[in-house]
Amino acid sequence: MSYAFRVALLALFLFLDCRRARADGQELPNHPLDSLKTGEYWTVYDVLQQAGHLDPESFFASVLLREPAKDVVLAWQEGSPIPREAAVVILRNGRTFEARVDVAGRKLLSWREAKDVQAPFLSSEVFGADEFIKKDPRVAEALKKRGITDLNTVQCIALPMAYIAVPEQTTHRVGSGSCAEQHGLYHTWGRDIDGLTMQVDMVERKILKVVDTEIVPVAKGARSYEEIPENPRPGTTPLFISQPMGPSFQIQKGEVSWQNWRFRFRIDPRVGPVLNLVRFEDGGRLRSVMYEGSLSELYVPYMDPSNGWNTRVFLDAGEFYSAVGLLQPLRPGLDCPANAAYFDGLSVGEHGAPKLASQVVCLFERTGNDPAWRHFEGNNVYGRPSRELVLRSSAVIGNYDYLVDWRFQQEGAIDVAVGATGVIETKASSQKGASGHMDMLEYGQFVAENLIGVNHDHFFSFRLDMDVDGSANSFMVARMIQQTLPSNPMRKSIWAVKPMVVTREKDAILDIHLDAPSMWLFINPNVKGPLGYPTGYEIMPGATAKSLLAPDDPPQKLGAFSEHQFWVTPNNASERYAAGVYPTSSKGDDGLAVWTKANRNIENTDLVGWYTLGFHHMPRIEDWPVMPTMWHHFEIRPFNFFEANPVLDLPKGH
Amino acid sequence: MSYAFRVALLALFLFLDCRRARADGQELPNHPLDSLKTGEYWTVYDVLQQAGHLDPESFFASVLLREPAKDVVLAWQEGSPIPREAAVVILRNGRTFEARVDVAGRKLLSWREAKDVQAPFLSSEVFGADEFIKKDPRVAEALKKRGITDLNTVQCIALPMAYIAVPEQTTHRVGSGSCAEQHGLYHTWGRDIDGLTMQVDMVERKILKVVDTEIVPVAKGARSYEEIPENPRPGTTPLFISQPMGPSFQIQKGEVSWQNWRFRFRIDPRVGPVLNLVRFEDGGRLRSVMYEGSLSELYVPYMDPSNGWNTRVFLDAGEFYSAVGLLQPLRPGLDCPANAAYFDGLSVGEHGAPKLASQVVCLFERTGNDPAWRHFEGNNVYGRPSRELVLRSSAVIGNYDYLVDWRFQQEGAIDVAVGATGVIETKASSQKGASGHMDMLEYGQFVAENLIGVNHDHFFSFRLDMDVDGSANSFMVARMIQQTLPSNPMRKSIWAVKPMVVTREKDAILDIHLDAPSMWLFINPNVKGPLGYPTGYEIMPGATAKSLLAPDDPPQKLGAFSEHQFWVTPNNASERYAAGVYPTSSKGDDGLAVWTKANRNIENTDLVGWYTLGFHHMPRIEDWPVMPTMWHHFEIRPFNFFEANPVLDLPKGH
Repeated sequence: MSYAFRVALLALFLFLDCRRARADGQELPNHPLDSLKTGEYWTVYDVLQQAGHLDPESFFASVLLREPAKDVVLAWQEGSPIPREAAVVILRNGRTFEARVDVAGRKLLSWREAKDVQAPFLSSEVFGADEFIKKDPRVAEALKKRGITDLNTVQCIALPMAYIAVPEQTTHRVGSGSCAEQHGLYHTWGRDIDGLTMQVDMVERKILKVVDTEIVPVAKGARSYEEIPENPRPGTTPLFISQPMGPSFQIQKGEVSWQNWRFRFRIDPRVGPVLNLVRFEDGGRLRSVMYEGSLSELYVPYMDPSNGWNTRVFLDAGEFYSAVGLLQPLRPGLDCPANAAYFDGLSVGEHGAPKLASQVVCLFERTGNDPAWRHFEGNNVYGRPSRELVLRSSAVIGNYDYLVDWRFQQEGAIDVAVGATGVIETKASSQKGASGHMDMLEYGQFVAENLIGVNHDHFFSFRLDMDVDGSANSFMVARMIQQTLPSNPMRKSIWAVKPMVVTREKDAILDIHLDAPSMWLFINPNVKGPLGYPTGYEIMPGATAKSLLAPDDPPQKLGAFSEHQFWVTPNNASERYAAGVYPTSSKGDDGLAVWTKANRNIENTDLVGWYTLGFHHMPRIEDWPVMPTMWHHFEIRPFNFFEANPVLDLPKGH
Repeated sequence: MSYAFRVALLALFLFLDCRRARADGQELPNHPLDSLKTGEYWTVYDVLQQAGHLDPESFFASVLLREPAKDVVLAWQEGSPIPREAAVVILRNGRTFEARVDVAGRKLLSWREAKDVQAPFLSSEVFGADEFIKKDPRVAEALKKRGITDLNTVQCIALPMAYIAVPEQTTHRVGSGSCAEQHGLYHTWGRDIDGLTMQVDMVERKILKVVDTEIVPVAKGARSYEEIPENPRPGTTPLFISQPMGPSFQIQKGEVSWQNWRFRFRIDPRVGPVLNLVRFEDGGRLRSVMYEGSLSELYVPYMDPSNGWNTRVFLDAGEFYSAVGLLQPLRPGLDCPANAAYFDGLSVGEHGAPKLASQVVCLFERTGNDPAWRHFEGNNVYGRPSRELVLRSSAVIGNYDYLVDWRFQQEGAIDVAVGATGVIETKASSQKGASGHMDMLEYGQFVAENLIGVNHDHFFSFRLDMDVDGSANSFMVARMIQQTLPSNPMRKSIWAVKPMVVTREKDAILDIHLDAPSMWLFINPNVKGPLGYPTGYEIMPGATAKSLLAPDDPPQKLGAFSEHQFWVTPNNASERYAAGVYPTSSKGDDGLAVWTKANRNIENTDLVGWYTLGFHHMPRIEDWPVMPTMWHHFEIRPFNFFEANPVLDLPKGH
């Protein structure tokens, strides 16, 4: 292709691109996996309205892109019509309806009531409960007993309970109500009115039951932490990062190109960034690594058995996403550096109009001044400095802020990291502190006077639709096994590698045991490298945790993905969420632990890996009034994918 | 103290300082824990020479600062005489002599022969073996059988075997010899002449036994990797880090001040940087965190049972340090950023003269643009950007390069990280690749044609002399235990904290089990915070590994520290090295596993923690011809040490 022809072709594409975007004043998608655009949200609205499915009692609980089948996407070519569908959940008087809308064709594909499930909680439900809770004379009386008579400074909310904790949930849409007293602060963290909770009927907007177990004074340990200090710590000299010629990455029609990486991402209102078509250019060939990768669910069970705390079990992606939106804005200079690019996100409002959220994803290069490789040889140092490309978002669910990073490495690895910060959940105590029992408490630790940070867990399930050199992959576990060497003159023992292709999904439910280590690999049995090995990508775990709850505990049935470190399933379009589609008031009958009971074949087929990133959290005083960020990681890294170290050709300097 | 008086006093100190440094043209130490200075190495030399202990057959194997007792250091005040001693190891005709020299007093304190031990291998021994190995007609014959007649391009070395593998070691100083063929490369990596090894008498400088088991052609997979490519990968735009007003840290008389941290470090020839008197300024009080922290030992056993490989077990800090020096230079722009400060190191030459090594430690601030904390609240983001201070060195032992970082966090934590890069050890194979058996090999993986990267482990022992608010500390293990809740209406299970102060060292030998998690804390039982808890610091493990070798395997007896993740001992000045003082040809009768058999008291006393950072390494093709850097971490973090999050007062921007 001549240069002039390529320029002409490029101009044509740009022209086409302009026309597409401006046809009716709306942005149009470039690709079947793009985020739903503003005009597409309105198409969904119009189709449902015209079908007569919207009335004043209908609330949009969820509008998500419904991905085309993988083979359709892989066969799709630029210029072809773009298939676009939306999956819609409508909440109407406590009943849940599901719709599928053909957005491109502007028509309703299906409408049905989903029985026995609860749609995620809406923002108006969570915060709108304040009004009727405070109007209830039993609550006013309970507050009065605590000396609280000015209800202007009291804020009440109703939260989902995630699992079937009380019988009323089977017939009602039940929330757990609680209140906090804000006077003197700009927020309510640390100001819970403990010992007082309510079972709330979210549809009738009334209290079913007030539970008043004990009067505990509101703790005084809360602080308006953002105002601290008036004058910041001195002695910090400026530290600048600059990229005066702009970033090394490019984005064209939604595809990011950086170094040898190519990938797309959309911003999904439920799970945050969804990476797609992650590929690596290797000697002119564009090789597939991962078809799709995203967070799938968050499971946060609290560990205090007392009333009001024993139902605090959160499935944050699935039960709240429409209420607050999983992603919240990133702040330049705080969350992302000066050289970052930002991306806005859309989600649905309760009445069907799209809501724009500003700067919910950022993309930036950074160098930690860690060498990509180096070696000291003959009195000299040789090597290449590294940089990485970070795709960052911030999932905020009430008190907690989770930074979720996909960090692309030049060497072909992706480091996935979660940074937890924000505010811990606290409980008031009539005791001032630990004095008298200097040991730790069983269920939480004092973090301020009369204030206990309650123990809890965090489990994140990452869904990784690996496509190593194509969709048909196998999963290999390479165990390291001790061998005794009875006849070896120099050694009595050694470890040897025992590789095994796992053929059934039950055998791919994996845990970490330091006494029985193994390496986990997605391989393509149909593609061999020059040395005869199948090409592969390894999942390398980081420091992590598994659930300690009993498997038959209702919340644990729901968060069962947390019982194991890694799972592998055959790809199934209906299996996207590790704790099921509707974790709000779930019986634990959907999700990874349920699907894998079928023990399906996972050999030489389209596979999905599910990584559990977890940590137990016993709060410490340093976590109050706002937590220092704590990071956890895992890595997706090439293993016999390339023909050599793929970063030999890096420049010698930045 | 008036301002004028303080200025006058400061001037006096500066004057005294100048005089001290210039008395005889030599730099003088500022503090009892400073590195030995050039003049002090010469004092050691002079004292031994004058005592008649040096003759032409005497080689300096080691000269190290012998620290004063901890109470002496803690009581020492600036202006007082500085106690200075050196511990010396002299190798003479295969015999090992130990001397203690009072450097400040210029006198010999002791001189004795150390029986039944081997001094570390000298550089002249390792590389000097080339001459006599190649002169041996058996070797020439063996090489000829392989078609190698030009011995100019052959390089032979002799390495220590670390443990008693052959009976000759009990009476001789035995090395394991091997050769490589360099023709066509600028190095010899990947060019081992496999199947041919020698038992070498290092004193007699002769071969005891030639072992020629099989003829394997030298592999052709070696590459002059630094020359790749002629033109680097395009499309990388410049990325600058600048700190135009200079660093935020200051160094005065060897003490580093950064943010609220204060610490000293010396550069020890055996273990690299030794951090001392690590303290945190908290509201005007200088509070102790760690008296001393350093690497203690490295243990790298290879996992191939064949001749020549079954003795490849390295204790890199203890058996080589004088031979090559643990630390090698860092390259600006590759290993450390533009805003780094560098520090040179001294070690002893074989004839007693000090050797200066350039830029072996760097110190720099960096920001990863990760918030120290953040929270989204009421449609806004609040938080503070973070930076860290990195003390970095590079331990290079032949093929491997280890970057060792002590990363000081503003919030009071220290992240300790090891990055492994450099060149893997390889073995020639008569097979071209894995074809025919696409599975992995038991003992290593093909990384290039005819070339196998041999499986191995890396274990690092970090010695952490924790002094949390003083030297008398206790060690607490807080286990998380499942509780069933038979009468709870909402939940069947929960986990609860069971804290236990561990009183004996055997009970503080800890492993990581995801089914039985625990938190590890150094606490000061004599100092309580305002909430009644003892002040504490947590050791938070990262992803790690433990040894899979049989405990009675001789190399494993030596590297027994690798069997467990964490150990706690009462502080004992003679216990500094996790695999003992003389790991060269050791019987495994010194080191952590031996000391802890005494099961000493560890309650309310001066404690040392020993963290094992380990990983198994099955090489992959991407690790050849030079490895992408792989990092492992652990963290030392405050737990109820402060009265709140200690980084509320950070500036809001960089």
